Amino acid sequence: MSGILKGMRVVEGSAFVAVPLAGMTLAQMGAEVIRFDRIGGGLDAGRWPLAPSGQSLFWAGLNKGKKSIAVDMRRPEGRELVTRIVTAPGEDAGMFLTNLRVRGWMDYETLSKFREDLIMVTLMGDRQGRPQVDYTVNPALGVPAMTGPVGWPEPVAHALPAWDLVAGQLVVSALLAAERDRLRRGHGQEVELSLKDVAAAVMGHLGLIGDAVVNDSDRPKSGNALYGAYGQDFVCACGRRVMVIGLTNRQWRGLVKATGTDAAMTDLTERTGRDLNDEGVRWELRREITAILRPWFASREVSEFAEDFDAAGLTWSVFRTMREALVEDADLSAANPMFQTLDQPGLGEFPVPGHPAVFSGHGRSAPRAAPVLGADTEAVLGDVVGLDDTEIAQLFDSGVVQSPRFKARPAA
Amino acid sequence: MSGILKGMRVVEGSAFVAVPLAGMTLAQMGAEVIRFDRIGGGLDAGRWPLAPSGQSLFWAGLNKGKKSIAVDMRRPEGRELVTRIVTAPGEDAGMFLTNLRVRGWMDYETLSKFREDLIMVTLMGDRQGRPQVDYTVNPALGVPAMTGPVGWPEPVAHALPAWDLVAGQLVVSALLAAERDRLRRGHGQEVELSLKDVAAAVMGHLGLIGDAVVNDSDRPKSGNALYGAYGQDFVCACGRRVMVIGLTNRQWRGLVKATGTDAAMTDLTERTGRDLNDEGVRWELRREITAILRPWFASREVSEFAEDFDAAGLTWSVFRTMREALVEDADLSAANPMFQTLDQPGLGEFPVPGHPAVFSGHGRSAPRAAPVLGADTEAVLGDVVGLDDTEIAQLFDSGVVQSPRFKARPAA
Repeated sequence: MSGILKGMRVVEGSAFVAVPLAGMTLAQMGAEVIRFDRIGGGLDAGRWPLAPSGQSLFWAGLNKGKKSIAVDMRRPEGRELVTRIVTAPGEDAGMFLTNLRVRGWMDYETLSKFREDLIMVTLMGDRQGRPQVDYTVNPALGVPAMTGPVGWPEPVAHALPAWDLVAGQLVVSALLAAERDRLRRGHGQEVELSLKDVAAAVMGHLGLIGDAVVNDSDRPKSGNALYGAYGQDFVCACGRRVMVIGLTNRQWRGLVKATGTDAAMTDLTERTGRDLNDEGVRWELRREITAILRPWFASREVSEFAEDFDAAGLTWSVFRTMREALVEDADLSAANPMFQTLDQPGLGEFPVPGHPAVFSGHGRSAPRAAPVLGADTEAVLGDVVGLDDTEIAQLFDSGVVQSPRFKARPAA
Repeated sequence: MSGILKGMRVVEGSAFVAVPLAGMTLAQMGAEVIRFDRIGGGLDAGRWPLAPSGQSLFWAGLNKGKKSIAVDMRRPEGRELVTRIVTAPGEDAGMFLTNLRVRGWMDYETLSKFREDLIMVTLMGDRQGRPQVDYTVNPALGVPAMTGPVGWPEPVAHALPAWDLVAGQLVVSALLAAERDRLRRGHGQEVELSLKDVAAAVMGHLGLIGDAVVNDSDRPKSGNALYGAYGQDFVCACGRRVMVIGLTNRQWRGLVKATGTDAAMTDLTERTGRDLNDEGVRWELRREITAILRPWFASREVSEFAEDFDAAGLTWSVFRTMREALVEDADLSAANPMFQTLDQPGLGEFPVPGHPAVFSGHGRSAPRAAPVLGADTEAVLGDVVGLDDTEIAQLFDSGVVQSPRFKARPAA
């Protein structure tokens, strides 16, 4: 069985997280994704973290399963090649993803002259095309102001490039929607969105804009508490920290039952006259609830209650570092069929994830390693552009293109 | 012009963030999305934040532009109605999104008996179907361990339900990919993914699993610094805080030039023998770089350099709270065509975002408010299930369904 998007061809001119992730998500669903880079690699070729070899684990992670070509786009021959690859014929081709926003030869107006039904999705920084990254969008919208320990006087950034991740997935669904439209109506189109608009929209979707306006309030920092209901972290007798959730009434009753704190919670209800079956009351009384639960966790090791919590169907987890998770959590091991341990040249051997979805008509797609930069240059020039061996050799000789086994020779 | 997915019908049985966001993303691209809930509302009907009326801003934010029906699924007639809605005929229908994972009448095996080419996407907590939420997945994978102020001894959770957001968008692209497959090959399918697998996969994609394995290291907390290159927050003379980025070499040179710190950076290079044109060196020397830049920002108000930074194309932003952003940032105002200020019954008037992408063939879709719970019950029973007025009246009378204007009467 092969991926659900088998047969689709997408070309990607990108760097960093969002658009590379978009292309990779399509590749992990079976699409042929051709990423082009300048010779020597794009802006993200050396992005940290690095392997001991100095090669980028980041780049390898976000370009799995793609084809890679290296082209000198400062030269007209290089620009022409990229144009021909992007606009090559094929019913399931003519799709282009980018965050590079190169005006002129690589914009929609120009490219669509070579393929009228081209679909091009461009992710910008902000809606006016100015540069923005996750690290700047996030503070501008107030997320660091609501993140961090209670009482901490400074904004705290998240460690995850969350907006890039969301934007990348929106690029995927925008492309699929545009291709669906092309199949029905025959026309291609340009799709534009920006990282900052993605973030601003989500802040609205989550009710945070409405909250700020109609309640005239900014959400305060609440440490590791679950906002709006009950959920809190506790340190156990073994020194390990756990997160326990009482978001729904069922979760809440399960937590109270498992910790044997019914009487204390009833007492809290009577003392305050507030109904703990209301999730908002649990939020407002979270400190009092935590004071009741804390001794229970402080006097027990995780191993004493883990099985009971699982058997009771509680929603909970243990705090881990990435390394601890790799040792302790079966979901990050070979027991999880989403992962395969691959030996990747220059990087080493470690568990590599495929696409998280399983499509019943296609099964699970095995992860494939990232290419070496330029690895597919020759094949793409032949298969997609339709050049013959002589033409391809001339392009390598003149340094317009490069591959790992055919580096440009110094000029004579 | 109407949305790019106009004509598609999707049914959603969901709660909380990920799947409601998925359905809403489809609705904001023009699909008809019918969300069914139990009478009185689902698990997220009262999720915080709330408007002064007590109504949920969260629910309204994540269900914009959907149709809502309220059905008593404890009764066989209610389950039959939902089954008929999910499996109703139509080339662009027969698509179902859920995170409820109800076995029996609402599972794929049963529903697909009524429509063989049904597409059903199910988001689970973990790959074994156990409950997990963003607040538990995140600590389990080590993100809070790498978030927060340098030296802070505890894990710090992010305030954004980032994994839910990513998972929701993957649900969208999985649905669109499965529908593409159905158009080509005629068959439907079941698609399953889990929140925890989504998070684990992304940790791999970002290189964090490889880093932990091949470098045997856990990423440390680095406060608000950009990981792996240069980016840092600074407090200015006016008390405002800014984030400035030197991720790419171009950004870095721009920042040095704009702050007139060339000589000091050259001196740092000579003193350390390290090349600041290497992004990794900028990361390793971030404290020294920050010490050079700090006095520059500390002695200037944001208003003194904002225009110059913009004119120089620097990548930077001001830290704001949500309320400050709504006042100060044009991207969160009516100047941004993504937003429209809507007056929503029970909630109030505030800027509401549409889909962030603009499709050139369809234009920008205007945001539509969320329905009142059950608002479309009558219309859906007529238009989708095909019941006549008498049959619909009987269902209302018997309390199997409900709408805002036709509440069930007390039993006689």
